[in-house]
Amino acid sequence: MTRAWNFSAGPAMLPTAVMERIAEELPDTNGSGMSAMEMSHRGTAFQAIAQATEADLRDLLDVPDDYRVLFLQGGATALFATLPLNLANGSGRADYIHSGHWSGKAIAEARRYCRVNVAGDCEPRGFSRVPEAGEYRMDPAADYVHITPNETIHGLRFPELPETGGRPLVADYSSAILSEPLDVRDYGLIYAGAQKNIGPAGLCLVIVRDDLLTGAREDTPSLMDLRAQAQAGSMLNTPPTFAWYVAGLVFQWLKEQGGLAVMAERNRVKAGLLYQAIDDSDFYRNPVAAECRSLMNVPFFLADPQLEGRFKQEAAEAGLLNLGGHRAIGGLRASIYNAMPLEGVKALVGFMNDFERRYG
Amino acid sequence: MTRAWNFSAGPAMLPTAVMERIAEELPDTNGSGMSAMEMSHRGTAFQAIAQATEADLRDLLDVPDDYRVLFLQGGATALFATLPLNLANGSGRADYIHSGHWSGKAIAEARRYCRVNVAGDCEPRGFSRVPEAGEYRMDPAADYVHITPNETIHGLRFPELPETGGRPLVADYSSAILSEPLDVRDYGLIYAGAQKNIGPAGLCLVIVRDDLLTGAREDTPSLMDLRAQAQAGSMLNTPPTFAWYVAGLVFQWLKEQGGLAVMAERNRVKAGLLYQAIDDSDFYRNPVAAECRSLMNVPFFLADPQLEGRFKQEAAEAGLLNLGGHRAIGGLRASIYNAMPLEGVKALVGFMNDFERRYG
Repeated sequence: MTRAWNFSAGPAMLPTAVMERIAEELPDTNGSGMSAMEMSHRGTAFQAIAQATEADLRDLLDVPDDYRVLFLQGGATALFATLPLNLANGSGRADYIHSGHWSGKAIAEARRYCRVNVAGDCEPRGFSRVPEAGEYRMDPAADYVHITPNETIHGLRFPELPETGGRPLVADYSSAILSEPLDVRDYGLIYAGAQKNIGPAGLCLVIVRDDLLTGAREDTPSLMDLRAQAQAGSMLNTPPTFAWYVAGLVFQWLKEQGGLAVMAERNRVKAGLLYQAIDDSDFYRNPVAAECRSLMNVPFFLADPQLEGRFKQEAAEAGLLNLGGHRAIGGLRASIYNAMPLEGVKALVGFMNDFERRYG
Repeated sequence: MTRAWNFSAGPAMLPTAVMERIAEELPDTNGSGMSAMEMSHRGTAFQAIAQATEADLRDLLDVPDDYRVLFLQGGATALFATLPLNLANGSGRADYIHSGHWSGKAIAEARRYCRVNVAGDCEPRGFSRVPEAGEYRMDPAADYVHITPNETIHGLRFPELPETGGRPLVADYSSAILSEPLDVRDYGLIYAGAQKNIGPAGLCLVIVRDDLLTGAREDTPSLMDLRAQAQAGSMLNTPPTFAWYVAGLVFQWLKEQGGLAVMAERNRVKAGLLYQAIDDSDFYRNPVAAECRSLMNVPFFLADPQLEGRFKQEAAEAGLLNLGGHRAIGGLRASIYNAMPLEGVKALVGFMNDFERRYG
């Protein structure tokens, strides 16, 4: 199996053990005579997969009984509309924290359906740190408070959650879900596009507290009605069955690794190694405040931006792929999700040191 | 490779050759060092797959240059809302032909966004035939005319298209796309959920004439804006990359088989064999008028409905899976898409004859 170190921000590397299992089970999954991708979503074979997948996720995140788990389509971007259509049904106002590119997208879409108060804005400081506790300007009548706990592009994370005064906290966890333990009870709703830490693109995981499922605005497309989806077991229409199945394999793999506390420790070691390499050098630079640095997405810049193209090309030749920064901010970026082993990060750090020696 | 004959209506059987190729390419697709499911959608490796997939589809269906091909999420059900949100922007009225369960669903969703005129209704005749030319009651000011050329549940197809007086014909081709040649120019927009004749669930194919991409209603969720999706090459957000890749393998397989004329001939032979077995017997029954019978979905009923459970159970034991009718109408149903070989249909007919001998 020829496998490169793939630092893509998403769709991203999956554990090689999961890839091998997919290949093995493709013609005939669980003795069904067909692949998971060929199963009727309403048949017993797929129902068993769907239920086991949800059960494993509930185990991993210790999801309380009064939270529903949904497996939807459209990625986090579909949720950007789904959230106000379902949750901004009191005052019609919502608090959003602007901490990077993706929360900016969430705000733009929410503005089409409700009144958004930007309760904290990290842009004036170049998205280099999240607001401190006293800096939030919340709207006490807002129906919910939205954060992006980990910003994939800016590599910024919330070291602690904002105080919401009892209003539901809604979090786009796309690039950090399952990277460390979290307390689901801190949130009213958690959502995450699958293509980073869960499985193939085309699946969006939602964990939502029962009491928030009060029904969507009348003009909401049926598929975006969270209450209806919960009532239908995420099967208002045919769900993305194969992505759901692969998510289940990833959840099993995470349990085999020892669960999220073990993954968190591994992720801290991986990220620590990479940030150390950056901080030890004047050749590389990461602008994010130490306590707000992402464990999953590590953007970095070269003192001489002219060298970026060469860096990417030589890295690719060395089997280190997809190290370009997002076109929104340029530079370089290494995404080091759960599936990236320490060995891959060591290979990257070795390359970085070597590149600096040659061009620094 | 232990493979059953899988008669599921969708997600459905895929060609075994395609399954083998997926397994082979999983760890390392096209020498990229990663699976198609791990590729960044904006990277050159996936862009090559995406473009080849579209080119092969254009080849197979001879798609004219002034039609865009989109690879979206949410299945046909997402399109049920997307259509009026994008196309009912003149009079705000639309003609729909009610020819079965799925056109009924399309109508219900469209009614939330525009005024629907049911221009033909097959329900009074138990969905046993489509309207004849003189029976349509079109609204000449309607912005478009919607049909479901093949009804998956009722097994009903349109032997010829209704006359629309120049208004765009919009067709939900989910269960018949690529089963035979069609003239794209007859349609303003064709859409199809992938999970029957294209690939894994979670992908919805759209073929739309340029001049219809005038922009969506203001309250349309961004992902449902067809013009914006066309401008973004179906990548307003991360598309379902793996499903897109598998669709590409299916398109390649169809070309290797000789294209859609060859598939159509095979499909006529397969369906003919099955309908013949039903018609030659008083034990089995299909209520659809001969000229309106689907080539893809063959519902049938037993003279004694009490025997249906036994039929399904014994069929499954014989490796003939998913023969239950949809819960909306009961009975039995065999879906025989492109991936079902003649051998599978012969096995089913053999079983049916045997079952009749034993219980008839």
